[in-house]
Amino acid sequence: MKPPVINFSTIQSVVEITATLAFALSGLLAGARKHLDVVGLCIVAGLSAFGGGTLRDVLLDRRPFFWVEHADWLWALMALSFAAMLFLRRRHLALTEKAIQWPDALGLGLFTANGALIALDLGQPPIVAVLMGVITATFGGVLRDIVCNEIPAAFHDHRPYALCSFVGGWVLVGAVQLQAPQWAVISAAAATAVLLRGLALWTGWTLPAWRINARR
Amino acid sequence: MKPPVINFSTIQSVVEITATLAFALSGLLAGARKHLDVVGLCIVAGLSAFGGGTLRDVLLDRRPFFWVEHADWLWALMALSFAAMLFLRRRHLALTEKAIQWPDALGLGLFTANGALIALDLGQPPIVAVLMGVITATFGGVLRDIVCNEIPAAFHDHRPYALCSFVGGWVLVGAVQLQAPQWAVISAAAATAVLLRGLALWTGWTLPAWRINARR
Amino acid sequence: MKPPVINFSTIQSVVEITATLAFALSGLLAGARKHLDVVGLCIVAGLSAFGGGTLRDVLLDRRPFFWVEHADWLWALMALSFAAMLFLRRRHLALTEKAIQWPDALGLGLFTANGALIALDLGQPPIVAVLMGVITATFGGVLRDIVCNEIPAAFHDHRPYALCSFVGGWVLVGAVQLQAPQWAVISAAAATAVLLRGLALWTGWTLPAWRINARR
Repeated sequence: MKPPVINFSTIQSVVEITATLAFALSGLLAGARKHLDVVGLCIVAGLSAFGGGTLRDVLLDRRPFFWVEHADWLWALMALSFAAMLFLRRRHLALTEKAIQWPDALGLGLFTANGALIALDLGQPPIVAVLMGVITATFGGVLRDIVCNEIPAAFHDHRPYALCSFVGGWVLVGAVQLQAPQWAVISAAAATAVLLRGLALWTGWTLPAWRINARR
Repeated sequence: MKPPVINFSTIQSVVEITATLAFALSGLLAGARKHLDVVGLCIVAGLSAFGGGTLRDVLLDRRPFFWVEHADWLWALMALSFAAMLFLRRRHLALTEKAIQWPDALGLGLFTANGALIALDLGQPPIVAVLMGVITATFGGVLRDIVCNEIPAAFHDHRPYALCSFVGGWVLVGAVQLQAPQWAVISAAAATAVLLRGLALWTGWTLPAWRINARR
Repeated sequence: MKPPVINFSTIQSVVEITATLAFALSGLLAGARKHLDVVGLCIVAGLSAFGGGTLRDVLLDRRPFFWVEHADWLWALMALSFAAMLFLRRRHLALTEKAIQWPDALGLGLFTANGALIALDLGQPPIVAVLMGVITATFGGVLRDIVCNEIPAAFHDHRPYALCSFVGGWVLVGAVQLQAPQWAVISAAAATAVLLRGLALWTGWTLPAWRINARR
């Protein structure tokens, strides 16, 4: 019996699915805290999971969207929302939030690499490509927070999040310039962002606050 | 003397105008509650009336927008906003809100049918077409609530609204699959959404809440 | 020694840079008040400076965006955000807000003229072109306020802002109809908006409030 063939793109797909689920779950948790109804939950989960990539594609004028090409994901998303409604209890909320931190960090890395690479392939200048990576990775969460009537956590919680994505984006631009093969480019960029994010979570590192907040 | 000829498209136009007015009025009411100035009122009324269709067209990469092709509507909208400012009093607010529930339900149905049909004609898969119908019908209200700094009522008030549109969209997809003539397709889809919404309003039916809200 | 050649487009560039800086600073101030972190500050500054033009370009389906063609501006924006973080103190906030009122008014005028002219050149009807001017000039601030979880000041503070832009837009449409040369068209439209805004600031003129707010 042969072992199943596991190549880079299989791994990437698995990571991508895990990450998208983590993003959708972060939307469900935010919606649950705001007491949204089931329709609101589905939409906030969808915005969190696909909002960043959709905004990137609108800005780059790219079609079709990911969720149009792979429309099955929309069904998966609805199923996930219903399952969460049926099985998640209040005591699960904090636990789930903690559990998704790591797949969420994976998503941050992978979506950064993916978004920046797409923009570079379209001939965008490096800083714009990096920015598209950041938008892909973080604007799902930003839209989630806007719809939930909060200031986006990515702008406000003084934890490095978009910054990890920004650094990962520059690693990608550098690796492309060095003409590294695509799997190395994606791995290096994603790993940088994931490790930085992991480090930030682990050490509790905070972004420098504006001194305006100080009492002097 | 001949009676005026009333055909399907005349009826549809009348319903569409009524529904758009209802959407605009819902924006004016929300703006009035937030004490917006006259400029804010015009813009919120416009977002409510045209925001859903514009977002659909941006996502589908369709131009020109409805309000670009029929720029007269923009004048009508401004006139409506001024008239509302001059003639609406506080005691009229609740009354107007009640009065627009029915034209608003008509708009929900018609915009659903319209949006889903446009997406199908562009060759989108069924679930995406249904989603485009829902976006056309509900995202004007969502943008209205975001701009007014509220959690969108469609996600939060536990009243079936987007859900009626969702079911209506599937009726449209089914009718198109059965190769029904266009007037029947639109009528069936719109009627389904309108009747469901009417039923929901009449019976006070609420969406299942997440059990997380319960005290256990 | 020859004096430097100063022509219309040099003046326009200087005014444009000044105005964009003022828009970015208004974002930084709003972000500082909400205690955003450094990433949030950069993004809110960017939204304030480029959000209106980007939304106009998405609606008109125009590419590349201003900040893609002139990607250096993104670096300038980040430098500005860092400089503000390092040097601005609480006691500077009110001062800065007062100081940017005038460059902000310049931006209102110039972006109105610019946005409306672009739309006219694309063959849009006059009312749509005027609206695109208003969107270019004001929606950066609207996005800034949405992200900061406030009702947009342009809709709410009863000071003429979008209205000045609206009038300036019609002056532009009129001047184009009269086949005035381009520098005159832009100057007349921008000057109208700037002067109206200046007059409004100077006299404290307020927009008519909806009588619904009165106690009768």
